[in-house]
Amino acid sequence: MSYNQIKLDIDGGIATITLHRPDKMNAFTRVMMDEFIDALDHTDSDDGVRAVIVTGHGDRAFCAGADLTPEGGGHVFSDPNPVEDLSDERVRDGGGRLTLRLFNSKKPLIGACNGVAVGVGATMQLPFDIRLCSDNARFGFVFARRGITPEAASSWFLPRLVGMQTALEWCMTGRIFDANEALDRGLVRSVHAPNDLMDAASGIAREIADNTSAVSVAMTRAMLWRLGGGGHPMDAHRIDSRAIYRLSRSADAREGIASFLEKRSPAYPDTVGGNMPDFYPWWDEPGYE
Amino acid sequence: MSYNQIKLDIDGGIATITLHRPDKMNAFTRVMMDEFIDALDHTDSDDGVRAVIVTGHGDRAFCAGADLTPEGGGHVFSDPNPVEDLSDERVRDGGGRLTLRLFNSKKPLIGACNGVAVGVGATMQLPFDIRLCSDNARFGFVFARRGITPEAASSWFLPRLVGMQTALEWCMTGRIFDANEALDRGLVRSVHAPNDLMDAASGIAREIADNTSAVSVAMTRAMLWRLGGGGHPMDAHRIDSRAIYRLSRSADAREGIASFLEKRSPAYPDTVGGNMPDFYPWWDEPGYE
Amino acid sequence: MSYNQIKLDIDGGIATITLHRPDKMNAFTRVMMDEFIDALDHTDSDDGVRAVIVTGHGDRAFCAGADLTPEGGGHVFSDPNPVEDLSDERVRDGGGRLTLRLFNSKKPLIGACNGVAVGVGATMQLPFDIRLCSDNARFGFVFARRGITPEAASSWFLPRLVGMQTALEWCMTGRIFDANEALDRGLVRSVHAPNDLMDAASGIAREIADNTSAVSVAMTRAMLWRLGGGGHPMDAHRIDSRAIYRLSRSADAREGIASFLEKRSPAYPDTVGGNMPDFYPWWDEPGYE
Repeated sequence: MSYNQIKLDIDGGIATITLHRPDKMNAFTRVMMDEFIDALDHTDSDDGVRAVIVTGHGDRAFCAGADLTPEGGGHVFSDPNPVEDLSDERVRDGGGRLTLRLFNSKKPLIGACNGVAVGVGATMQLPFDIRLCSDNARFGFVFARRGITPEAASSWFLPRLVGMQTALEWCMTGRIFDANEALDRGLVRSVHAPNDLMDAASGIAREIADNTSAVSVAMTRAMLWRLGGGGHPMDAHRIDSRAIYRLSRSADAREGIASFLEKRSPAYPDTVGGNMPDFYPWWDEPGYE
Repeated sequence: MSYNQIKLDIDGGIATITLHRPDKMNAFTRVMMDEFIDALDHTDSDDGVRAVIVTGHGDRAFCAGADLTPEGGGHVFSDPNPVEDLSDERVRDGGGRLTLRLFNSKKPLIGACNGVAVGVGATMQLPFDIRLCSDNARFGFVFARRGITPEAASSWFLPRLVGMQTALEWCMTGRIFDANEALDRGLVRSVHAPNDLMDAASGIAREIADNTSAVSVAMTRAMLWRLGGGGHPMDAHRIDSRAIYRLSRSADAREGIASFLEKRSPAYPDTVGGNMPDFYPWWDEPGYE
Repeated sequence: MSYNQIKLDIDGGIATITLHRPDKMNAFTRVMMDEFIDALDHTDSDDGVRAVIVTGHGDRAFCAGADLTPEGGGHVFSDPNPVEDLSDERVRDGGGRLTLRLFNSKKPLIGACNGVAVGVGATMQLPFDIRLCSDNARFGFVFARRGITPEAASSWFLPRLVGMQTALEWCMTGRIFDANEALDRGLVRSVHAPNDLMDAASGIAREIADNTSAVSVAMTRAMLWRLGGGGHPMDAHRIDSRAIYRLSRSADAREGIASFLEKRSPAYPDTVGGNMPDFYPWWDEPGYE
C-alpha cells in the first residue's frame, strides 16, 4: 500500500490507518478522503483483517479539521461557478462521503484519538464503533463558529452517541472540550495516557480478533447500526431470525460451540469474503439525490 | 397455574415469573418460551395483576442462555432439512417471539436478574421496563463468540437502552461483564445484594400498584416504547391528545384528582380489561414475513 | 410586550421568558400557552435575539402543572359535550401545541428550572435544547397518578433525552424526583445554587451569542432534532451537503474564517430573517389529523 496522506499497516489481523500529514496537524483534504476510502475497501476485502484502528500521526493532533488552503481543497469555498442544482453530486460533502463509507465497513472500527480533533476531525470519528482517546485530546464541533453547519452526517450520528442535549450544546456553542468531558458525556469509552492509547486500542481489537467469528462481527455491525435507530422491533426480528437460522448451520457456529465446550481458543473457518448469509445485504443503499 | 419450566406466583397485585430449571441454570427452551408467553397472556388478562417481576430460580443464574441439547430444542441447529424460504414461520427465532410478546405487555415488567445472564438470558431482559440485578450478576451478549448474531430483536432494543457505542462493544467482543459495568452503562437501573434484590423489585412494583391507574400505566408503556424511537413529535401529539381527551373524562382521572386533592391513597376503578380508550391499539401490529 | 401570565425581557441579544403567575406557582393555562407561543413568534422574528432563556417567577416553582380550576381552563376535564371525532382540532392537547412550537424555534432554548416542575411544567421543558436547574428543583411526570397519560409529545421527547429505562420508570411510577436524580439521569446538564442559576443560563446564552452565526445555530438546531432520531445517515448527508455548499459561500462563513484566522471576535452579518439557505425548511410540517 502506498498512500501520500495516510498510512495503512496490517499486522496480526489488525489494520491501522494513520492520518499522516506531519506538518499540517493531519488536516483533512480530498486526497486524504480518497485514500481513506481506498484503505477501507482494502480492509473490507482482505479476509486477514479482523479489526481496524484509526489514529493520527504524532503526539499533537488526530486531525485539525478541513484544510482550507487551496492545497487542501479548501478552494471549494470560493468556487467561482457554484452549482445551482443541489442534488448534483458535486454538492456532496467530502466528510459525508467518508462517514457513509465508514458506516458500511464490514470490519469493526476502533478510534484512537491522539490529540486535537475539530471539525471533520471530530465528525469522522462518529461512525467508528468504539472511540478511545488520550488525555491530551481536544474535541470541537466548531461549525457554528465558522458560519457553517455540522457535516459528515454528524446530525444523524452525534445525538445517538451522546444524546440530544449534549449534541445540541456542543454544536450550538461550538466550543472546544477536553477528554474528560468526552468521557463523561459518552463520546469516548475510555481515556488513556498518550503512551498507553495504542495498546488499549489494540487490546480491544485483539479481543475481537482472537475470540469472534468475522462473519458474526460483520453481521452484528450492520444489524446494530441499521436496526437500532427506529422502526419496530419486528424489523429486527425478521433479520435476526434469518441470521440465526442461516448462521446456526455454519461452520463458524459449529466451531464456536465446539471451542466453547472444549474450553479452547476458536479457529473460525468462515470469511466475510465468502460466507456472508445469502440475504445480506438486506437493504437497498440510498443514493445522494 | 401449572408450568414445568417457569413458576408464576401472584400476590398482592404483583405477579412473579420465575425461570425454573434448577439443574440447568434456567437455560432457555422452547417449552420455557411457550410457558413464559402463556404466563404473560395471563398477567395481561388478570385485572388483579398490576406489575410483573421476572427473576431466575436459585442464587447462581438468571438464565444461562439457550439450551443447546436436544432436550432444550437445540436440535434446530442440526435440523437435517433446513427451510429455504426465510419468510417461513419456522425460521422465526424463539427469543424474538418472546421479546415481541414482552414488548406488547399491558403490565409493567420489572427484571430482577439474580446471577448469570448470557445469550438469550441477557437479550430477553431488554424489553423489560426496569432492570435491577444482584451484585453477583454477569451478562454476556456472546453471540459473536458462537459464530451467530444477536437475536431476540436485541439489535433494536440494546442501542436504545445503552447507546450505540456500548451496544457495539458488548456485541462485537462478546465478552462477559459484571453488575457494575451493567450499571455504569445503563443496562440496569440499580445493583443490590442478592438478599435485597427481590425486595427492591417489589418496592418498585408496589409503588406502581399503590399509586397509579392501571389504564394509565398500560397506555404509558405503549406510548413510550412505540413513539419514543423515531418519527416526528406530531406522531406523539396525535396519540397523547386523544389519550388525554378520553382519559381526562374517565373515572380514574376523577379518582386521581380527588385523591390528590384529599391527600389520600387512590382507589382506581378502571381496568385494562374494560376501560382502555376506544382508539387503542392505534397501530397495526406487523407480522413476520 | 405586554402579557398577563408570562414576561418577556430582551437584553443584550438574550430573551428571557418568565412564567409569571405569582400566586399560582406559575400553573399552566390556555392563556399562558397563547402568550408563550406569541413570545416565541417574537423571539424567532426579532433578529436581535440570539438565545432564549425560559424560567419561572419566584423561588419556589418553575411551573406546578396544569391549572385544573375553571380559571385555568381545567373545565375541559368536565366538558359536558365531548367531541367524538378525535381528529378534531378541539381534541388537541395544549401542552403539545406549545412543545411543537418550541420544537420549531429558530433560536436556541435554554431552560432555567428554578423549583417545582410537575406535569406540563416538566414536559414543556423537554424540547428545550439545554436544561439547567436549581438545587431545590423537583420534577414529576405524575400523569399515571392522576389517571391520565404523558402529554405534550413527551413520549417522543423524554426517551431520547434520558433513555427508555429512565423514561419508563419516571412515567410509570409518577414519583417526584430531585435535582440530583435529574442530573444523574441526564434530564438536566447541570445543577446550580438558586442564586447562580440565571447566571449559568446566561453564560451559555452569551457563549452562543458572542461566538456563533445565527444562521448556523438555527440550521444546527433543525438538523440535530430532525435528522438525529432515525432513518439513514444518507438523509443527513443530503441536507448537510446542501447546507455546507450554500453556507460556505455566505458572508457569515467568510467572517467566521476571517475572525478565526485573525484571532478576533466575529461580527456575523447574516440573519435568520434574511439569510437562511434556499432549501430551508426541507421538510413538510405534519398537521394534526
